[in-house]
Amino acid sequence: MILEAILMLAPLAVSLIYKESFVHILAFLVPIVALTGIGFLLQIPKPNRNHLYQKEGFALTAMVWIVMTLFGALPFVINGDIPNYIDACFEIMSGFTTTGASIITDLTVISRSTLFWRSFSHWIGGMGILVFVLIFIPESNDGSAMHLLRAESPGPQVGKIVSKMKVTTRILYLIYLGMTVLEVVILMLDKPIPGYENDQFFFSLLTTFGCAGTGGFGFISGSMQMLHPFSQYVISIFLILFGCNFSLYYLLLIGKIKDVFRSEEFRSYFLIVAGAVVFVFLSLVCRFEAFPQTYTLEESFRHALFQVSSLMTTTGFTTTDYDLWPMLAKTVLILVMFIGAMAGSTAGGMKVSRIVIAVKGMYINVRKLINPRYVPKTKFEGKTLEQKTINDVFAFIALYGFIFLGVLFLLSFDPVNGQTVSVVSDAGSHTVKHGFFSNFSAVLACLSNIGPAFEAVGPYSCYVGYSAFSKIILSLTMLLGRLEILPVLILFNKRTWKKV
Amino acid sequence: MILEAILMLAPLAVSLIYKESFVHILAFLVPIVALTGIGFLLQIPKPNRNHLYQKEGFALTAMVWIVMTLFGALPFVINGDIPNYIDACFEIMSGFTTTGASIITDLTVISRSTLFWRSFSHWIGGMGILVFVLIFIPESNDGSAMHLLRAESPGPQVGKIVSKMKVTTRILYLIYLGMTVLEVVILMLDKPIPGYENDQFFFSLLTTFGCAGTGGFGFISGSMQMLHPFSQYVISIFLILFGCNFSLYYLLLIGKIKDVFRSEEFRSYFLIVAGAVVFVFLSLVCRFEAFPQTYTLEESFRHALFQVSSLMTTTGFTTTDYDLWPMLAKTVLILVMFIGAMAGSTAGGMKVSRIVIAVKGMYINVRKLINPRYVPKTKFEGKTLEQKTINDVFAFIALYGFIFLGVLFLLSFDPVNGQTVSVVSDAGSHTVKHGFFSNFSAVLACLSNIGPAFEAVGPYSCYVGYSAFSKIILSLTMLLGRLEILPVLILFNKRTWKKV
Repeated sequence: MILEAILMLAPLAVSLIYKESFVHILAFLVPIVALTGIGFLLQIPKPNRNHLYQKEGFALTAMVWIVMTLFGALPFVINGDIPNYIDACFEIMSGFTTTGASIITDLTVISRSTLFWRSFSHWIGGMGILVFVLIFIPESNDGSAMHLLRAESPGPQVGKIVSKMKVTTRILYLIYLGMTVLEVVILMLDKPIPGYENDQFFFSLLTTFGCAGTGGFGFISGSMQMLHPFSQYVISIFLILFGCNFSLYYLLLIGKIKDVFRSEEFRSYFLIVAGAVVFVFLSLVCRFEAFPQTYTLEESFRHALFQVSSLMTTTGFTTTDYDLWPMLAKTVLILVMFIGAMAGSTAGGMKVSRIVIAVKGMYINVRKLINPRYVPKTKFEGKTLEQKTINDVFAFIALYGFIFLGVLFLLSFDPVNGQTVSVVSDAGSHTVKHGFFSNFSAVLACLSNIGPAFEAVGPYSCYVGYSAFSKIILSLTMLLGRLEILPVLILFNKRTWKKV
Repeated sequence: MILEAILMLAPLAVSLIYKESFVHILAFLVPIVALTGIGFLLQIPKPNRNHLYQKEGFALTAMVWIVMTLFGALPFVINGDIPNYIDACFEIMSGFTTTGASIITDLTVISRSTLFWRSFSHWIGGMGILVFVLIFIPESNDGSAMHLLRAESPGPQVGKIVSKMKVTTRILYLIYLGMTVLEVVILMLDKPIPGYENDQFFFSLLTTFGCAGTGGFGFISGSMQMLHPFSQYVISIFLILFGCNFSLYYLLLIGKIKDVFRSEEFRSYFLIVAGAVVFVFLSLVCRFEAFPQTYTLEESFRHALFQVSSLMTTTGFTTTDYDLWPMLAKTVLILVMFIGAMAGSTAGGMKVSRIVIAVKGMYINVRKLINPRYVPKTKFEGKTLEQKTINDVFAFIALYGFIFLGVLFLLSFDPVNGQTVSVVSDAGSHTVKHGFFSNFSAVLACLSNIGPAFEAVGPYSCYVGYSAFSKIILSLTMLLGRLEILPVLILFNKRTWKKV
């Protein structure tokens, strides 16, 4: 809580720099004071043991995200940018979970400090609040830090880069910071957006926060559509880079370049990105199916690259209204939304490593049926793939599927279903119906922490139409997706709270 | 092949009874002669061993379905009812796999013998061609019959009712026949459909074939919409009964009624049916969301009961245009389409038992994370649920999901995407766009052997719009769904064909 108070000093500074009204300054001051006060009060009762059980680590992680959301939403309500508290919670949960799903219909009336705080929340959430917290928590030798990290770090492998936890997190953090600075610098090289000449640094910073956390909150209407092609290419490349397992950068730093290219997940990741870009590009160029936009060859490639990298890394930035694209392009985007980027990155989704393991596991299963005495020697990342790993991945996919269908069921109660929404995008003004595909893609976009989806919750519309109940459900879905389901289930399981 | 020739004598008889033209008689005569000829020729080279390996049993099953489809499609092409051979293959594969997905746009111009043959194929496919074949195949003691049955009988449990294979299949077959006769008799009690007074027996027979095989081919336009409420209730109840595990009927026959009600799958099945009917009924009555039809209370209940039982048992009969229903009703139908009926029934889908095992498995996984020393004592059907069973179910669900997304990808190439289809249903004439939901539900309807889906492939339209490529893909999807995926994968695996 004290950490969140410290983090809130940043938007407070933004508010002061842009000389915003007193209410906007107060909006951050009040939660800062509250968080600091409660934080210090909670430190008074000294814990009578210093180690954490695994379940406590899991439950604590989930709880911290909820507490951070409940307090992080306060500024939006106080400064009036998002008057409804549930909407504000949805927005900041979407920020911290690096989803980027928004309920704001008009970004032009939103204050600078709010814009900064929501994009900054991506950056905080991206690397995981708790990997962040770990730097401040005194190192313990009984593995309690490890339990926190296990709940936090996306993907099946934590990737113990170096043995010491504290050093690991600092290295990860430095890589993250370095890449952030690099992207801001490169984005500053581009010509500024016409009409926003003085805002280039502010916008570059916000864009980079969105990229680094693979979040995807925008700051001007039309997301990244206004940017020059140079910036769009830069963002695409950085998105793909932020979708890589961070331990690969460490390997790169210590000169083990060969190991990077030997990584199966790395190669699969680039293969999937390349394949998806090719299919989307062909779909846009060949026009088997009519769609409103007319692109040049370069534009087709740029939009294909941008949308694939944006949706596969579960960021959700947009340069064009992909909801109007042909079915092939849309289906490929849906598939990469399911897959997500690499484990150990800031991205959400199932993760490439799980997909690779699942495919190999299925192959092994068929082989075993053909020959019951078959002993699998299939390897993953150089090590023999154990049946236990495969089973865990299958269990995860099944759990993912069940939660998916469960949330889809809950959304079907919403009165927004069947209503018509008008959308203004780069392809002009048109209306879309809130149908099955809206709900389906909304669940996918929240569970995989992407943000924009299709149809009524597409790239040029937002989640404002959903009822408060659905917004709470979708917020929890983001948290489930971000923490890879199990920690949240543990938090809400009554056995966790039993005294042992 | 000889068996298929014998089975084709039935539609030939229908053709003679209704005094159809020479072409229609020839349509069945030619394949009968061809099948008999090839069948006898293939019997000449005596096999040098009499037993089957597991993989051979699996591959043989898949192959028999494909051969039966290739020959079973001939009559449609010869008599001109379905001039395109690929369309004809789609139709009869849909029949044999008890899917009920059709490419016929106007049923009124179709001959009686064709109508009979496609519905009869449901009845044949329903219990599994090979359970059928087993009665004629001399019993072998080395378990080769068991291997065939394992590939054939839907669901994780084969349910060895009595130890002897041959006796088992005969009992199953008699129960199946008995229930078929019972349904025809009860349906005959209803008033005939106005305008079709002389066809009541023919229609009752065709309806029952569709119910028994949980197939769902119709015979007059509008599927079951024309029937009187009495028949609709009768069909609903028989659908639910045909969705039960057939070993339960054996238990009933030998007086072990208690065991039936003690069956967890049985209870879960009825709970899901009841829950789904309640939610659909409420959705139709409360009208949270506007939809074109206006039902009385009784009609709401009847349609809810009919559509839930029809789609959950993966039959696909329809009494009303459920594609226009509110989102809640549609989502519930989608969920029951995923679930399917009980294992050991003629239905497709995932099966209730797998869902129950998966839910218990997920609970065990969470418990194990909370307490790593937790030893699960969870039971299913009175026996301790083994980790191996849970893993198999998770693997099946993951495989199901991957194939689902794969087929969705292949369908996205179809030029039909984005086109508009006009539909005439009980809610009047309207148009629907072939969008994502069409493809999504088409994959679900084929993989779970249901038939009608939503949107452009909804209850009052058909699969005729898809390209030949998509039709072949969807035909194979039906086969994958019917044989529960693995046998088909084994057939197409090159290692199966290696000499050991």
